[in-house]
Amino acid sequence: MGDQMNQPEPRIEEEMEKVVDQIKELQEAASSLISMSSREEKNLQHRALSLDASIAKLRSSISSLTSDGRMDPKLAEKLEDELNKAKCILVDGDASSFLAGKVDSRFLKMFLGPINVRAIRKDVQFKVKEEYNSYKDRTACLFLLLPSILLILRSWMWDGCMPAFPVQLYQAWLLFLYTGLALRENVLRVNGSDIRPWWIYHHYCAMVMALVSLTWEIKGQPDCARKQRGVELFLQWAMMQGVAMLLQNRYQRQRLYTRIALGKAKRMDVVWGESTGERGQLLLLCPILFILQGFEAYVGLLLLRTAFVGVEWQVVFCGFLLVLMAIGNFVNTVQSLLVKSRVKAKIKRSKSKLQIDQE
Amino acid sequence: MGDQMNQPEPRIEEEMEKVVDQIKELQEAASSLISMSSREEKNLQHRALSLDASIAKLRSSISSLTSDGRMDPKLAEKLEDELNKAKCILVDGDASSFLAGKVDSRFLKMFLGPINVRAIRKDVQFKVKEEYNSYKDRTACLFLLLPSILLILRSWMWDGCMPAFPVQLYQAWLLFLYTGLALRENVLRVNGSDIRPWWIYHHYCAMVMALVSLTWEIKGQPDCARKQRGVELFLQWAMMQGVAMLLQNRYQRQRLYTRIALGKAKRMDVVWGESTGERGQLLLLCPILFILQGFEAYVGLLLLRTAFVGVEWQVVFCGFLLVLMAIGNFVNTVQSLLVKSRVKAKIKRSKSKLQIDQE
Repeated sequence: MGDQMNQPEPRIEEEMEKVVDQIKELQEAASSLISMSSREEKNLQHRALSLDASIAKLRSSISSLTSDGRMDPKLAEKLEDELNKAKCILVDGDASSFLAGKVDSRFLKMFLGPINVRAIRKDVQFKVKEEYNSYKDRTACLFLLLPSILLILRSWMWDGCMPAFPVQLYQAWLLFLYTGLALRENVLRVNGSDIRPWWIYHHYCAMVMALVSLTWEIKGQPDCARKQRGVELFLQWAMMQGVAMLLQNRYQRQRLYTRIALGKAKRMDVVWGESTGERGQLLLLCPILFILQGFEAYVGLLLLRTAFVGVEWQVVFCGFLLVLMAIGNFVNTVQSLLVKSRVKAKIKRSKSKLQIDQE
Repeated sequence: MGDQMNQPEPRIEEEMEKVVDQIKELQEAASSLISMSSREEKNLQHRALSLDASIAKLRSSISSLTSDGRMDPKLAEKLEDELNKAKCILVDGDASSFLAGKVDSRFLKMFLGPINVRAIRKDVQFKVKEEYNSYKDRTACLFLLLPSILLILRSWMWDGCMPAFPVQLYQAWLLFLYTGLALRENVLRVNGSDIRPWWIYHHYCAMVMALVSLTWEIKGQPDCARKQRGVELFLQWAMMQGVAMLLQNRYQRQRLYTRIALGKAKRMDVVWGESTGERGQLLLLCPILFILQGFEAYVGLLLLRTAFVGVEWQVVFCGFLLVLMAIGNFVNTVQSLLVKSRVKAKIKRSKSKLQIDQE
């Protein structure tokens, strides 16, 4: 009996010793890997930052030499091109992960605490960007679908007076959606995307608007149709927004792929609302964008006008936000178009120069 | 003139070549670091997982040997203690970062996309945990302060009838707060904390409740005081919640530090709502927790009762959620207490055994 009891123990004890030793080894390997890679990361970050500074210095000395007339403009252009290429490698290559670490997002900190959302590996960054694009696509479809359903049911089933619940459900969805978009865009920015800040602010405004609209009384007792005029306008605008978003997404994705192929863009660039690119699609997109912004401002002003009739503050506040967003969107679209035409002019100039040189 | 123009160019071109070369070197160093560390990480993860499996196997074979009577229970206990220590190193040491990678959070994905929020370095993980604790502290103060202000102003300035705006502001704050807490807790879970799932579900419920309460009409036309009875109860409950949160935070932090000092807890453990620890404080905390849960259920039932009077669905829904949360909180607190008493009994048993052995 004693023998039977003692027999298996040494084997188990031996095995246990082995496992414990292996765990200690693993622990050492893990801590040395972590400390080594954080040391190396700091080193690379230091090098990347100093090279970034050198590029800026070279760029400024080239421009000062050119303006002094001490450098041939043709040579200056050539050197600048080379600098751009170098900057591209620095900013878009693997080293970029160590440059991007400086960006800090207060919005993310507010929701998540001081957690790091920066992906070191490029393929993970691309996955995030791709997911953002497909999220926008799915969103755009719902943006078109949900208000259409509400408006159709309104005239078809609800006799011109929507019940509060489905509208509030839609508003809650909007709040969730805009929060998600704002968070994702902040994540992209931390990961090195140079999304225009306005498009993020725009989503902050939209978040506030969705929140405020939730508290807004939808079913008016005396004259429902008149009271719901604001909601109706808002839903119509949302439908137009859906169409514009679908077009924009399609266009910008195509353009992004073209630009990546041309090596001009970092893949983390988000170009929502920017309007540079293929001519034909742009001719379609630009008027739609401007009409949409005009309609946004119109809805906003209509809501503001109701202030004189003495309705709830929510309606007035939403009107104010809509006008603000319309103006901001307009200014940013025009700025993007201006940047685009400047770039085009430059390309044209250098092309014609090339032709002169070749002749 | 030509000389003057050509003089600075070679220097700049030379410098540029140097910078470009350095950038290429940096790019290579960065990509080799990234690929090396991701290879090493996979290797460590593989080793950590297989060691984790070995520990589980050893544990089961020890228990089967003991139940067969083929192993001395005293030896089995010794071996189990050793296993626990080994598991602690694996789960709490640097290697743990590679074990924790498996946890996936749908909630985070919904808001942020497929971004990695796992910190590899322990000090970063601790910073996140610490920030979560101080966030809870700040929150608890506001939880106490804001409803008190509303209730004081109500009787002091507003003649028993609160205006809608400040209440809605408070509800929006609640929504933001609970979203932040739920996101942070998911981040902690991804980082290896074994927070009880209920406390996260509890915050999802609270998020939904805050959202629904935003749509709930606050100012009643005929009898404001009666209509605001629900809001009043809710605010009183929130004040109690604030006191309980402050006590809990203090208690759990102390306990966490004690447990860390004893080497029993992983530092990522979140122990909100759990009740194991120093006797004196527990005697104070437990009744308060139970009273709070009782009051939560009472408020919920009162709100539910209004369903018969025919008020808005929001009130009924919030009542239902409050009752649900009260039950869940109660069950989880009791479970934690049971776990605690079992652990205590075990410690007592082994202590008395030790005494017998020493005699």
